[in-house]
Amino acid sequence: MGIVLGDNQYGKAEVRLVHVDRTTPQHVITDFNVTSQLRGDFTAAHVAGDNSAVLTTDTQKNTVYAFAREYGAAEPEDFAIRLGKHFVKSLPQISGARIAIDQHSWDRIMVGGAAGQAHDHAFVKSGAERRTTVVTLEGDQIWVVSGIDDLVVLKTTGSEFRGFPRDSYTTLAETSERILATSVTARWRYRAEVVYSQVYPAVRALLLETFATTHSLALQQTLYAMGSTVLEAFDDIAEIRMSMPNKHHYLADLSPFGLDNPNQVFIAGDRPYGLIEAQITRDDDATGPGLAWASVPGFV
Amino acid sequence: MGIVLGDNQYGKAEVRLVHVDRTTPQHVITDFNVTSQLRGDFTAAHVAGDNSAVLTTDTQKNTVYAFAREYGAAEPEDFAIRLGKHFVKSLPQISGARIAIDQHSWDRIMVGGAAGQAHDHAFVKSGAERRTTVVTLEGDQIWVVSGIDDLVVLKTTGSEFRGFPRDSYTTLAETSERILATSVTARWRYRAEVVYSQVYPAVRALLLETFATTHSLALQQTLYAMGSTVLEAFDDIAEIRMSMPNKHHYLADLSPFGLDNPNQVFIAGDRPYGLIEAQITRDDDATGPGLAWASVPGFV
Amino acid sequence: MGIVLGDNQYGKAEVRLVHVDRTTPQHVITDFNVTSQLRGDFTAAHVAGDNSAVLTTDTQKNTVYAFAREYGAAEPEDFAIRLGKHFVKSLPQISGARIAIDQHSWDRIMVGGAAGQAHDHAFVKSGAERRTTVVTLEGDQIWVVSGIDDLVVLKTTGSEFRGFPRDSYTTLAETSERILATSVTARWRYRAEVVYSQVYPAVRALLLETFATTHSLALQQTLYAMGSTVLEAFDDIAEIRMSMPNKHHYLADLSPFGLDNPNQVFIAGDRPYGLIEAQITRDDDATGPGLAWASVPGFV
Amino acid sequence: MGIVLGDNQYGKAEVRLVHVDRTTPQHVITDFNVTSQLRGDFTAAHVAGDNSAVLTTDTQKNTVYAFAREYGAAEPEDFAIRLGKHFVKSLPQISGARIAIDQHSWDRIMVGGAAGQAHDHAFVKSGAERRTTVVTLEGDQIWVVSGIDDLVVLKTTGSEFRGFPRDSYTTLAETSERILATSVTARWRYRAEVVYSQVYPAVRALLLETFATTHSLALQQTLYAMGSTVLEAFDDIAEIRMSMPNKHHYLADLSPFGLDNPNQVFIAGDRPYGLIEAQITRDDDATGPGLAWASVPGFV
Repeated sequence: MGIVLGDNQYGKAEVRLVHVDRTTPQHVITDFNVTSQLRGDFTAAHVAGDNSAVLTTDTQKNTVYAFAREYGAAEPEDFAIRLGKHFVKSLPQISGARIAIDQHSWDRIMVGGAAGQAHDHAFVKSGAERRTTVVTLEGDQIWVVSGIDDLVVLKTTGSEFRGFPRDSYTTLAETSERILATSVTARWRYRAEVVYSQVYPAVRALLLETFATTHSLALQQTLYAMGSTVLEAFDDIAEIRMSMPNKHHYLADLSPFGLDNPNQVFIAGDRPYGLIEAQITRDDDATGPGLAWASVPGFV
Repeated sequence: MGIVLGDNQYGKAEVRLVHVDRTTPQHVITDFNVTSQLRGDFTAAHVAGDNSAVLTTDTQKNTVYAFAREYGAAEPEDFAIRLGKHFVKSLPQISGARIAIDQHSWDRIMVGGAAGQAHDHAFVKSGAERRTTVVTLEGDQIWVVSGIDDLVVLKTTGSEFRGFPRDSYTTLAETSERILATSVTARWRYRAEVVYSQVYPAVRALLLETFATTHSLALQQTLYAMGSTVLEAFDDIAEIRMSMPNKHHYLADLSPFGLDNPNQVFIAGDRPYGLIEAQITRDDDATGPGLAWASVPGFV
Repeated sequence: MGIVLGDNQYGKAEVRLVHVDRTTPQHVITDFNVTSQLRGDFTAAHVAGDNSAVLTTDTQKNTVYAFAREYGAAEPEDFAIRLGKHFVKSLPQISGARIAIDQHSWDRIMVGGAAGQAHDHAFVKSGAERRTTVVTLEGDQIWVVSGIDDLVVLKTTGSEFRGFPRDSYTTLAETSERILATSVTARWRYRAEVVYSQVYPAVRALLLETFATTHSLALQQTLYAMGSTVLEAFDDIAEIRMSMPNKHHYLADLSPFGLDNPNQVFIAGDRPYGLIEAQITRDDDATGPGLAWASVPGFV
Repeated sequence: MGIVLGDNQYGKAEVRLVHVDRTTPQHVITDFNVTSQLRGDFTAAHVAGDNSAVLTTDTQKNTVYAFAREYGAAEPEDFAIRLGKHFVKSLPQISGARIAIDQHSWDRIMVGGAAGQAHDHAFVKSGAERRTTVVTLEGDQIWVVSGIDDLVVLKTTGSEFRGFPRDSYTTLAETSERILATSVTARWRYRAEVVYSQVYPAVRALLLETFATTHSLALQQTLYAMGSTVLEAFDDIAEIRMSMPNKHHYLADLSPFGLDNPNQVFIAGDRPYGLIEAQITRDDDATGPGLAWASVPGFV
């Protein structure tokens, strides 16, 4: 009857890598935030301070930069898989790895006015949204989860919220017209290898279009519509998990000032916010998620 | 062969509650950030926009404030349990709940100079650290996880890092003298009811003292020492999980200026940082964690 | 010989206003963060707690929302001027006002695929950058400062840094090839009324194009080129002030791993960063800035 | 009639310095965030990219670390003055400097239980508040401004807000009982040299005690009481400037649930917030502020 070490992992978080591909005059920039974590038998380090099996986090960081030079940095999924495979085979005590990458995107600056063109080597940062991946490896197995963070969307009509139950603490009025706004975090698990550079923008576009064109009866319904559309369109995606805060916009009560407010003036709230989270999956997902989500931060 | 809804939960996040107990002239202030999420059969809401089983997030928020008046707000664990029980029995479709509370702490302002005393109703905010709890309920079962976030500690000596393996990407030098700094996030699961108001400060003090007095050979070893000390001291705690970034302090190289640097001048780094995460548990934990950690954000 | 009240101002900060113009099916959304502050003779409030001349900050907030209904919310400069004029004439003790607005921008979601079109009422948030204005009023005088915050840009070539002096603390190598990255904060003061909706995008485009096309010998020179181009193009702008952090991208030293690094792999740094700030003005600015910059936060 | 460079400054921002004094077994830790900016004739750099007078920001950073070794790092004011003097005399084109330091504080960890003692070399980070200084130099002149940031305080009674004027946009009710909460930013200018290590904690204690013991009729009145008390107590302080957001705590309306709320349950708001800013000075301040506040960020 004793105290024992359970699951554990360690690594280097937020290695900020910017890679410039200069093979043509039109430079290509890749902006990654890489976190690597290793799993295996690290009992000696924890219990006795014996570091003989600890591939240092500094070495992990060095490897990120060296690999960017040796192999380039194109798609985050490919970079993460390569990095993870390297770490898993580096020392016998290391059995698994988790590589997470957030990618910041940059747009080319337009020059030359209205009939202008994209500049070859000057960029302006795109929105706050980030493309993400979490790749989990255990022995020979690899799970790839891709996603998007902080995709902030809003619609000014086409959103209702009615028909909910009322108890003694309910004061909310039903509405057939409200602003619907959210910041989409979505992560989807692949069940086959894909060309990641093609799937990502297609999923992003589908999420946006479904949000825009779905008449919303509840944020839950909008979420499900967005996720299920992705599964319908991409057979290689086994499941998708989404977390969507309901960023409330309250209709301002202007009646004390003798004014009506026909859905024109809103107070954007900070806290609290609704929080809707769900997995959308397939009923024939025989293989199952394995360790894909074992250390994906946060939702559901 | 179709697309189906998997796990899901919804609720109101970050309900900011400040409660003042005025029963004596010495007021007591409680400052909570409450997030409630409900689980159950919400397929109709997701698939059809049918909200008839959706206890609204606005109602959840109202309930937080009303319960604070009806029952007070003393220990976050007790408040979360009461709230969760209420939600679980509120509608037949609701089978479970997850209530997370972050507590901000306040110190009384000292007045009257050196021989002064604590003021009755004026407070100054304590450090950035927060006391936390995540209570998970499913039917009649309840799991209580308590914790602390952002407890930032540093020691200026008594920390080594040596004996690690070297591969072709290793450049780090061994050191027998370094600054060790981290921001402790710890969460522990109870296997029995305790007097939460007594256990929390005792665990916090133990974490701090163990950090201070352990000669560190690795941050992993420090983490394990901190966690296992807690389990040794509190039989009612079944396990503890910790996430500790290694907040690197780099010895400044002053040799270009003809200066030595006998561990006096350091560069505090932001990113990247090491990240060490582990569970410390008991080998006789027959019951197991159940759903305690099902939606605890983040680590391991 | 006594203690006296000096300059002072008070108001309501960060009133979050979202306005929807529904006059056509193609809705127009305006997203403002409004801060109003009033100036005048508020000695009684400070010294004696006499609030008889204090137009409450709550009333200021209400006025923001009411004005959005009464007059719409198109250009932030126009909204701020109208609001400021109202406050200045509201009470005899109020002699001046400062109205600051940060505007968040939203893009229409594209639907219908490659040959798609912009959606009428669904939006995705643009980048982190914000359009800003600070309008200062004193009696009948009005000063308008407009600007942009957090316009993050980067170029992968066309940037040198050489010819600087060396002292005993200098270790930096000269370079004729580096990444240049910054987050532009610019504020410009008008000396005539303009159509703000036209000038803002034109200034933004000019700042971007000048950054892209200027071969940089120093961030100072790039800043000056950007600012002076704006003054050359817009006679109605009297001066421009800019604050540009040098967001360092360090070339990774891969030589320990037997690798060269021909400007391909960079470490994006957080802190410290260079910080370059300057005013660019006209030598015939007879009128001068007056109170335009009296309470503009921060730079130079 | 042309475009010209106006005021400008450049430097290195947020140099993170941690200094450990090991002269006794009881180590002393100093944690600074240093920003240096230089002023002078830098027209050539801006207009022509001629860097021959530009003491690089990298050199400024190096100097911070080297000076910490050469001279130690005790009081931020002394460190800033020494650094500024060095830069001003380093090159003929440099005429002035602005050195800003934010200091993070650390408490010793208590070990040994209730009758315990402070540990010699292990620390826990104190609250979010920071001690600050901005030292401005121009030629032989030096101005020292010291301060505190983010000192968050709250009182649960002893705060009213009544007697304010009402216009057609006023809805706020008068109250003789409310929570008063704010985050104090204060900066004070010295008119004589002092022992900074003694004055800072004394001013901090005075601000706290005055907040606690002043019956508040308005946040303006509380601010003035706090500031004037500091001037009364310290003849060497010429003036103090304060910025205090009114962090609103709204009494929750529980009447829909059949509950009263005798000032017990509050909603802590985020945005908007009141913002009260004022200077408190002396009517015999013959010398005046000079350049002391020329580039102090932000308020009034």
